[in-house]
Amino acid sequence: MPAETNPFMTLALEQAQAAARRGEVPVGAVLVDGKGTVLAAQGNRTIELSDPTAHAEILVIRQACEQQQSQRLSGCALHVTLEPCPMCATAISFARIHTLYYGASDPKGGGIAYGPRIFSHSTCHHRPDIYEGIGETQSSALLRKFFKALR
Amino acid sequence: MPAETNPFMTLALEQAQAAARRGEVPVGAVLVDGKGTVLAAQGNRTIELSDPTAHAEILVIRQACEQQQSQRLSGCALHVTLEPCPMCATAISFARIHTLYYGASDPKGGGIAYGPRIFSHSTCHHRPDIYEGIGETQSSALLRKFFKALR
Repeated sequence: MPAETNPFMTLALEQAQAAARRGEVPVGAVLVDGKGTVLAAQGNRTIELSDPTAHAEILVIRQACEQQQSQRLSGCALHVTLEPCPMCATAISFARIHTLYYGASDPKGGGIAYGPRIFSHSTCHHRPDIYEGIGETQSSALLRKFFKALR
Repeated sequence: MPAETNPFMTLALEQAQAAARRGEVPVGAVLVDGKGTVLAAQGNRTIELSDPTAHAEILVIRQACEQQQSQRLSGCALHVTLEPCPMCATAISFARIHTLYYGASDPKGGGIAYGPRIFSHSTCHHRPDIYEGIGETQSSALLRKFFKALR
């Protein structure tokens, strides 16, 4: 599904491109409230911040929670260019995010459709509605280009 | 195994007690480098910081990585009073922490021996050495007391 059908994914892809320009793995995330207001938009900053937890998803969750002065983002939607890893998937569950849209699947590092499949366990107390494949072509192209340049 | 055999777990239990006094779920974590120097000691601060990712483990990892200006804590050991959740277990793997000591098991929320068993998947690139049950009696007692008072 092209990202054009989802303007928030277009914004997330712009964040991913900006991350690539900073030398970070190009993943971007946008958090939107129930009224369609963008609460936070970020790309990966693990290198810049020397922080292995500074994935785009964690950064937008932390930023929006601080703004809202709440640990819960119940009515919100997260748009992210790549399938979240197990760390981010768990944080999405903790934050009670209502809907998750993601672009490319990640067989090597994903934690939703692959690997530990975080939302599939009975101990997971909140599972968002999930829509995948939005903007996956652009997302995958960005990641391929980035990792090709590293080799 | 009593916490007295591991002075770092005693310190982690003190952090858990301090978290309880702040009204936070009583879990504490201590990160130690290869020479036995304490790099960071923290308890949960999810309520105080309005941050669902502010588990004790994440806080010490972020603090130590910032100090070291590195995403990797390769020679380090993490001592935590409760089995880490899937978010924290994944962060432990990303940070390449060498050894993990934990106290009580957590069948309801743990991500190592229970639930998604983060380190058991082929997509997990780093698995620490793991020792469990250190200080579990004190850790469990703290958690029981805390949750009993909430009811």
